[in-house]
Amino acid sequence: MVKKVKVGIVGGTGYTGVELLRLLAVHPHVELSVITSRGDAGTLVADMFPSLRGYITLTFSDPATANLTACDVVFFATPHGVAMGQAETLIAAGVKVIDLAADFRLQDTAVFEQWYNMPHACPELLKQAIYGLPELNRSAIKQAQVIGNPGCYPTTVMLGLAPLLEKGLIDFSAPIIADAKSGVSGAGRKAEVSTLFSEASDSMKAYGVAGHRHHPEIEAQLMHLAQQPLQFIFVPHLIPMIRGMLSTLYVKLSTSAQGVDIQQLYESRYADEYFVDVLPAGRLPETRSVRGANHLRIAIQSQGGGYLTLVVVQDNLVKGAAGQAVQNMNIMMDFDEKAGLQVLPLLP
Amino acid sequence: MVKKVKVGIVGGTGYTGVELLRLLAVHPHVELSVITSRGDAGTLVADMFPSLRGYITLTFSDPATANLTACDVVFFATPHGVAMGQAETLIAAGVKVIDLAADFRLQDTAVFEQWYNMPHACPELLKQAIYGLPELNRSAIKQAQVIGNPGCYPTTVMLGLAPLLEKGLIDFSAPIIADAKSGVSGAGRKAEVSTLFSEASDSMKAYGVAGHRHHPEIEAQLMHLAQQPLQFIFVPHLIPMIRGMLSTLYVKLSTSAQGVDIQQLYESRYADEYFVDVLPAGRLPETRSVRGANHLRIAIQSQGGGYLTLVVVQDNLVKGAAGQAVQNMNIMMDFDEKAGLQVLPLLP
Amino acid sequence: MVKKVKVGIVGGTGYTGVELLRLLAVHPHVELSVITSRGDAGTLVADMFPSLRGYITLTFSDPATANLTACDVVFFATPHGVAMGQAETLIAAGVKVIDLAADFRLQDTAVFEQWYNMPHACPELLKQAIYGLPELNRSAIKQAQVIGNPGCYPTTVMLGLAPLLEKGLIDFSAPIIADAKSGVSGAGRKAEVSTLFSEASDSMKAYGVAGHRHHPEIEAQLMHLAQQPLQFIFVPHLIPMIRGMLSTLYVKLSTSAQGVDIQQLYESRYADEYFVDVLPAGRLPETRSVRGANHLRIAIQSQGGGYLTLVVVQDNLVKGAAGQAVQNMNIMMDFDEKAGLQVLPLLP
Amino acid sequence: MVKKVKVGIVGGTGYTGVELLRLLAVHPHVELSVITSRGDAGTLVADMFPSLRGYITLTFSDPATANLTACDVVFFATPHGVAMGQAETLIAAGVKVIDLAADFRLQDTAVFEQWYNMPHACPELLKQAIYGLPELNRSAIKQAQVIGNPGCYPTTVMLGLAPLLEKGLIDFSAPIIADAKSGVSGAGRKAEVSTLFSEASDSMKAYGVAGHRHHPEIEAQLMHLAQQPLQFIFVPHLIPMIRGMLSTLYVKLSTSAQGVDIQQLYESRYADEYFVDVLPAGRLPETRSVRGANHLRIAIQSQGGGYLTLVVVQDNLVKGAAGQAVQNMNIMMDFDEKAGLQVLPLLP
Repeated sequence: MVKKVKVGIVGGTGYTGVELLRLLAVHPHVELSVITSRGDAGTLVADMFPSLRGYITLTFSDPATANLTACDVVFFATPHGVAMGQAETLIAAGVKVIDLAADFRLQDTAVFEQWYNMPHACPELLKQAIYGLPELNRSAIKQAQVIGNPGCYPTTVMLGLAPLLEKGLIDFSAPIIADAKSGVSGAGRKAEVSTLFSEASDSMKAYGVAGHRHHPEIEAQLMHLAQQPLQFIFVPHLIPMIRGMLSTLYVKLSTSAQGVDIQQLYESRYADEYFVDVLPAGRLPETRSVRGANHLRIAIQSQGGGYLTLVVVQDNLVKGAAGQAVQNMNIMMDFDEKAGLQVLPLLP
Repeated sequence: MVKKVKVGIVGGTGYTGVELLRLLAVHPHVELSVITSRGDAGTLVADMFPSLRGYITLTFSDPATANLTACDVVFFATPHGVAMGQAETLIAAGVKVIDLAADFRLQDTAVFEQWYNMPHACPELLKQAIYGLPELNRSAIKQAQVIGNPGCYPTTVMLGLAPLLEKGLIDFSAPIIADAKSGVSGAGRKAEVSTLFSEASDSMKAYGVAGHRHHPEIEAQLMHLAQQPLQFIFVPHLIPMIRGMLSTLYVKLSTSAQGVDIQQLYESRYADEYFVDVLPAGRLPETRSVRGANHLRIAIQSQGGGYLTLVVVQDNLVKGAAGQAVQNMNIMMDFDEKAGLQVLPLLP
Repeated sequence: MVKKVKVGIVGGTGYTGVELLRLLAVHPHVELSVITSRGDAGTLVADMFPSLRGYITLTFSDPATANLTACDVVFFATPHGVAMGQAETLIAAGVKVIDLAADFRLQDTAVFEQWYNMPHACPELLKQAIYGLPELNRSAIKQAQVIGNPGCYPTTVMLGLAPLLEKGLIDFSAPIIADAKSGVSGAGRKAEVSTLFSEASDSMKAYGVAGHRHHPEIEAQLMHLAQQPLQFIFVPHLIPMIRGMLSTLYVKLSTSAQGVDIQQLYESRYADEYFVDVLPAGRLPETRSVRGANHLRIAIQSQGGGYLTLVVVQDNLVKGAAGQAVQNMNIMMDFDEKAGLQVLPLLP
Repeated sequence: MVKKVKVGIVGGTGYTGVELLRLLAVHPHVELSVITSRGDAGTLVADMFPSLRGYITLTFSDPATANLTACDVVFFATPHGVAMGQAETLIAAGVKVIDLAADFRLQDTAVFEQWYNMPHACPELLKQAIYGLPELNRSAIKQAQVIGNPGCYPTTVMLGLAPLLEKGLIDFSAPIIADAKSGVSGAGRKAEVSTLFSEASDSMKAYGVAGHRHHPEIEAQLMHLAQQPLQFIFVPHLIPMIRGMLSTLYVKLSTSAQGVDIQQLYESRYADEYFVDVLPAGRLPETRSVRGANHLRIAIQSQGGGYLTLVVVQDNLVKGAAGQAVQNMNIMMDFDEKAGLQVLPLLP
């Protein structure tokens, strides 16, 4: 008999919430027990998202009364600051917590408080939290009670650079540059003029002039792997597509990289990683090649002069959010890591 | 020397407002004097709409203090109900008023009040208001003090059917059907989830299940030309494009239409209408062929059995709103009707 | 043990081909054996469609040498005229044939030859072919050797009207009107200027002025159910979205429909049809609510005067093509009809 | 009386051709005399591009018989290699030539021949050709007989970096990086699978893995201004929008830049350039803010560590092609440089 766990979702009405629902509705080991929404308690989930008609019969519950402690796992698809207010109670009740917001991503609470303008509610719990990037932290995730699910941009940058960082092949006298491009769903399902169809369609822009909150997250992770200070330049752009993220990374190789077959290095590093695909030399990826799927693809281009370009694509809502969260749950619960995630990309 | 008139715009921050600005900024006979915005008073217009940098140096004024009575013409690009509150004062001061909302479109105040849920503030003035469809009402517009600028859908339906209605060639035992499609800018520049890029892109839908406010407007205009009761079926659809409107009209011809060359009838009727283009037989129009321009194109297809299909395209923000408003101003002010409107469509 | 059948695909490089691959790659009862492509023989399927990397290891074979007779089922995702040239040989070898083109859709060879400009290669086989619309022809499909998989537009019109036609509730003195809208993938993966991104994006048009090939197909199916002559008016439109089809149907109800609860009629008719979803009264569907999935949704609106509007949506490549073909295979092979088709719609 | 010149266009059926037509149809000093097209000779221009109905009555002529020598100016909107075959004859007849392809952009014929795989037909004429970037070469353009109109990417990079290069403020020990993004119209109006709507919509990619032809063009221009060797890294990306280009430039400032107010430097440098707009500090541009217009906007961001990011936007078909060509003609013919180019951006 198939083992099933009870799953709760806090904040099911945003894009990461509905994406969790899409994936979990047919996950072989999951029984969806609770979905909360402050604003839409009492509404049938499938009335808000007709794409789920016939798959999900649950009704949104009021977060105040939802019985989350009866779950085995609870996902937070909420704004920053919500998960840290409830995590301790859940952990105490033996529930595993996966937060898709930023509450458990930054180990340094001062940095957290600076970028998110709020005190951290549970710094002690934060110390135990694991950064949920399975390809880097799988064994820690397996033991974790609380997961800080990585941001979408950080996932592309870290998986794009990990093979170089782990081998010490980057020359940190030059900055690491990430010119990153995101589909509009990354901005969430909030009523805002700037992401209206008539504003965001048939146009593009750079944004985040005052700094993007993924900057400190990436910087912390880079330094964790590099074990030394470095400069990280990050320019995010908004692209007129619903889903998809493409990060173009520019790095300078260290002299120790001379003679190293970088293509081969990446292929070896990710040979056993089901969700990371290193493209053959000379190929470049399109974001649609991962649309709706948990795969991330990497292409490597040498630029001469010791510079290397990496092009990394993922679906920002899947490997960049809900899919990675499910991957983390699979690891924590000892399921097949691919369970519920063998959904093929939708192309065209 | 070129004659110039002082122009005011009330409510310059929506899509019809910024479209008026685009057209009027280079209109040879216009001096833009005042632009109001309740929420953005004090902001430079070109700071809100960087596309206008270098063309418009005005700042949004507070509607409470804006000196609108010093204008020759005032356009209302406001929500329904605003123009009727200010029109009498302006008219008394000799200002001509062109309302792009619905306040002066429906002669029957009971119908207005039913569909717009508010009492009409100036029913006396409404009696003098002219429905600003130049191709049907040009001489009345020339004399008008107050113009109710037509809705976007009504413009396509009325210009699509006028040649038949004027000649009595429609069999009203069958309903007139308008299957209409609009770009998303028709929903306005309001922060709403349903018109977010990630909701409205790569998808389409019918809407207005409870009835669309253009239904009574079209019905009134149809009956005005038909001089008899008729059934009008109207299904609007939302299409993932910024601008553009295409209405497909289905009518049954009366027996008196037998032997009439309908193509020829349309070409004659609109031969002198610069902004109405009857396509050659066998051609069908694309909305992009009028993107950004004040032209409306019509194609005629016989369907057998006495049924006729008309395909009508326009830019909903130009001939369907701001462009038609400028055309009305040109007529009222005795300018060349094309002044400021010879902007070519943007293709591709 | 799970029963598996050997499946071949002729013409795997178009959109219906790659969609079959997406669905069949994870179908529990399918072993993909052969995929042919005249132009791309020798190319890895996953090199042409990187979305399939990790899921499909096959190489395109030359159609001349491909061992199709060793398959249990062969799908033709080819241009019109290909399947009829090979079907007899396959049938003789005991292979079941599902043609996604038009070769086996029109029982009247004269009509076929008029619209497709080619003689029919196997009129005898055509007589045995079954029109593969499961919700109407399930028992015949179960016995069939050859399936003519319905066109995308016909699927929406027939499922939209079947409940009325079966009960004799349509007044055929008025025409049946289908104002249909399709995403651009319906035009196929052919290098043509008119479907370039820069031509088809941010614009829409009606097309098929000279008649669309789905017209006779729909007309034949309508008359088959109506058992009497009728007029069918069909205007297809091209919409700037990749996938998705929305048909708005206008019919006049007969007097025998008076007092009939049409909403209830539809809900009953489709209560046991997993892939047909009748929306609650007052709701209208979006095409994205079925993106990538085999569901078709119907909404019913009364228009007064005895007229009814039906709004039907589907994914043109799934329920309108490849998904329906897999559904047919499931029926023919006695699999669960839903096998491999419980893929949730991708939203947003 | 307004002075008018006779203008010819060779190759009027691509996107730069139709864009020239849009701009020149209402240019106050231009009489469109000849438009050629090998494939469409005899077709009315407005039949191919219905957006031009009512504005252009010309018919495409056969290039073999077109009387181009009677023109004052001839634009080549043709594939690479066409203009150089006809330029000498035209120059000899006193016609000024503006080539929108690459024939006259690269002074070094060896580089030209390497990247374009064809011998240069008129190396002597090439020596006199002027690189038509008005903001850098205005006085030379005024005297020129032959203009090599810059590529779209090079225009953004050169105008983005010129103020720094002219003042010697770049540290060339680091590479200059251009992460560039283009709308799909940049790929031209050619029937190709990769730019079909269903391939290019709702997705993005990097391309040009084997090197992009604008790379040597930019490199040559950079070195011309820098007067020294440098490394230039260029990664172009394809974005799902029709028009628009955004280049994000990463440079390291030299020590001589310490204390220099870079924002002020840019504002001064371009204070008198009507088509170059330096945004206020802290603002970032959207491509739609220049849609359809000849403006280019630049934003400057300091990144710390001596690194600077420049974000440059333009409409690839206007300032990146046809608009710049008209600007060059205006200079060559001693017209107001803005003549015919005060077309406001289309927003939304």
